[in-house]
Amino acid sequence: VPSAGELPITQYVPDGATIDLAWGHPGEALLPVQEWAAATEAALTRYGWQALSYGHGAGPGPLVDWLAARLGRIDGRAPAPAELFVTAGASHALELTCAALTRPGDVVVVDSPTYHLALRVIADHGVRLVGAPADDEGIDPAGTAALLDRLRSDGLRVPLLYLVPTYANPTGGCLPADRRAALVELAARTGTALVEDDTYRELAYPPAVAPPSLWSLADPAADPAPVVRLGSFAKSVAPGLRLGFLTGSPALVRALADRGMVDSGGGVNHTTALAMAAFGASGGYDRHLARVRVGYRARRDALAGALRAQLPAVRFRLPDGGWFLWLRLPDDVPAGPLAGAAGRHGVGFLPGARCYLAGGGSHRARLSYSLFDPPQLVDAAGRLAAAVAELSSPGRSAPAR
Amino acid sequence: VPSAGELPITQYVPDGATIDLAWGHPGEALLPVQEWAAATEAALTRYGWQALSYGHGAGPGPLVDWLAARLGRIDGRAPAPAELFVTAGASHALELTCAALTRPGDVVVVDSPTYHLALRVIADHGVRLVGAPADDEGIDPAGTAALLDRLRSDGLRVPLLYLVPTYANPTGGCLPADRRAALVELAARTGTALVEDDTYRELAYPPAVAPPSLWSLADPAADPAPVVRLGSFAKSVAPGLRLGFLTGSPALVRALADRGMVDSGGGVNHTTALAMAAFGASGGYDRHLARVRVGYRARRDALAGALRAQLPAVRFRLPDGGWFLWLRLPDDVPAGPLAGAAGRHGVGFLPGARCYLAGGGSHRARLSYSLFDPPQLVDAAGRLAAAVAELSSPGRSAPAR
Repeated sequence: VPSAGELPITQYVPDGATIDLAWGHPGEALLPVQEWAAATEAALTRYGWQALSYGHGAGPGPLVDWLAARLGRIDGRAPAPAELFVTAGASHALELTCAALTRPGDVVVVDSPTYHLALRVIADHGVRLVGAPADDEGIDPAGTAALLDRLRSDGLRVPLLYLVPTYANPTGGCLPADRRAALVELAARTGTALVEDDTYRELAYPPAVAPPSLWSLADPAADPAPVVRLGSFAKSVAPGLRLGFLTGSPALVRALADRGMVDSGGGVNHTTALAMAAFGASGGYDRHLARVRVGYRARRDALAGALRAQLPAVRFRLPDGGWFLWLRLPDDVPAGPLAGAAGRHGVGFLPGARCYLAGGGSHRARLSYSLFDPPQLVDAAGRLAAAVAELSSPGRSAPAR
Repeated sequence: VPSAGELPITQYVPDGATIDLAWGHPGEALLPVQEWAAATEAALTRYGWQALSYGHGAGPGPLVDWLAARLGRIDGRAPAPAELFVTAGASHALELTCAALTRPGDVVVVDSPTYHLALRVIADHGVRLVGAPADDEGIDPAGTAALLDRLRSDGLRVPLLYLVPTYANPTGGCLPADRRAALVELAARTGTALVEDDTYRELAYPPAVAPPSLWSLADPAADPAPVVRLGSFAKSVAPGLRLGFLTGSPALVRALADRGMVDSGGGVNHTTALAMAAFGASGGYDRHLARVRVGYRARRDALAGALRAQLPAVRFRLPDGGWFLWLRLPDDVPAGPLAGAAGRHGVGFLPGARCYLAGGGSHRARLSYSLFDPPQLVDAAGRLAAAVAELSSPGRSAPAR
């Protein structure tokens, strides 16, 4: 349904020709269209005028209660209600966290590679971004400790360290347990809070279970709190709702609820938050989540299988959750030129360099398998193989790695 | 329906005993509970997955188109689609405007009196607030011009001047046409942009028609644009939706759409925005607005009539729209002590001093007639009269003014 006017409806507008795996967007068939209408009606029936008036600043009680219980089932511990703040999405949670905890001129350390658009959200706050040392398992705690020491000895304030440790964007991987523990210890010791982007936790593919969050590993009594965890309903339900949350210290939750914008406007997405509470209470959330986990796993398998069959020289790990394959390309196929060739073959991807601050990722590519259905993903793999063949050194087989 | 948990659902929780006229909140009976469920279902039926995916950054085409046409009917000119940015409420529009156009250390000039919570939104951006000279007709353009000169000659940057010129919060008044023109000219000449909080435009009580916005008076080709107008669906439809907009220069709209948070999360309240587009297209918006204008006018008349009957020494102008009466109290009844006495009599109001940065408003009170129904408002006037009587000098009639 195109807009009648000049402007589009959605951020991504299919062009009908390109299978663009650069977009980390949900599949059309995996969005709960009828279910969300029912949840909204249920909330309005149940809560009446309370669903439409100014909402409680930190989020309406019914959603906070449901969310606390849900996190108790899928994470290492349940937050107390005073540790939860309902946001207008995970990006908004990051925006609010930066507004509350950074000052212009601060340094914010980020995982490398990391979610490329988070870099932009953080940079909007006038801070300097510095990449943390990392290897194929993720961020390196010892190297990061040394980095924090160096930054501090240069007189810099380093309030935050941002990372996506679970079914990561872009790698799909999970940070190992020992590194999780070490990072939480580092945060507690240094006062640099970990900003844990936990957007993909609900997209674990059974029998896989997401590891306990960094937030759940931290001492709840530590002051300042070592971890702020950003959560989202964008991947588990729908991004257009703009509904997410954060778990942090009661002091942070109070500070956010006390911002002028929240005092003036009330809870930041109140009606939608109550619809989500109704969706959760009805069992609709659980049913929907079971369906999308199966759906996204099938998409992962379709793309991964087709890539393995058609591009054996391209290496990647099969993620246990989330939306992304993180490819290592052959030495003679750098991502930049490949993106151009792929475009000519009708397929797109995110060049890995986009996920680094500067340098790195020249032979990496992020492929999102979320948006397209399995036959399209198989088609995309074929198109990508044709683009790789066009670039590969003639008469030379792809190097083993 | 109280929350089952520890936290409330709404920002204001009725206590059953106090008629608290301090809250500028909508009346329960004037919120479109069933209508909003229908609008949401219509949007999901019409736009399908597009209503739930990431939305176009500046707002979805259907709402932008409808809103541009609507503003063309109720204001001096219709914005081009490129001049509109859909926000998560007017408070969020103010937050975004400050984020885009101010730097810490800047001065922001504000009308006096003005919306008290806007002061907090603006102050969150690390700027210094300075009150503009004003009289009973509103902000004084000549005095404000002199103030801007003084601030600039002190080497200060003054990017914004915030005011509520139409059915103002707290005064209920409309800035006269000559002052509107003079302020727009001043903004064009000095580069200090007017931030026009236009939240109450739709709440004109027929036959009154809201005056043309400052935004509509400015030269559309002026660069930088002299006016940013903040709009809202909080009063015309429902505040819990967190949906508003701003009209500004295409450059400002592009800058907001280009913020990291919007690039990452898409349009800031996408699904709700499409439900509003459906509400507008169905005629539901017009029907609802006609109903609430009648309802709020009846509330205004109930409170104003009861006050005139029971508190002849209290002076106020009858507003042609909006939600507020702005009282001048007798000399022997300052607002601070009256608030205490009123509380004991089971009635509340906003002491006028809250609407000034510092000084002023000692004998002013803002009474919101939006939240309570006419019998409660009559009751409230009686309780306030009892409180005034308690404070008034014994044996002395209230002074004429």
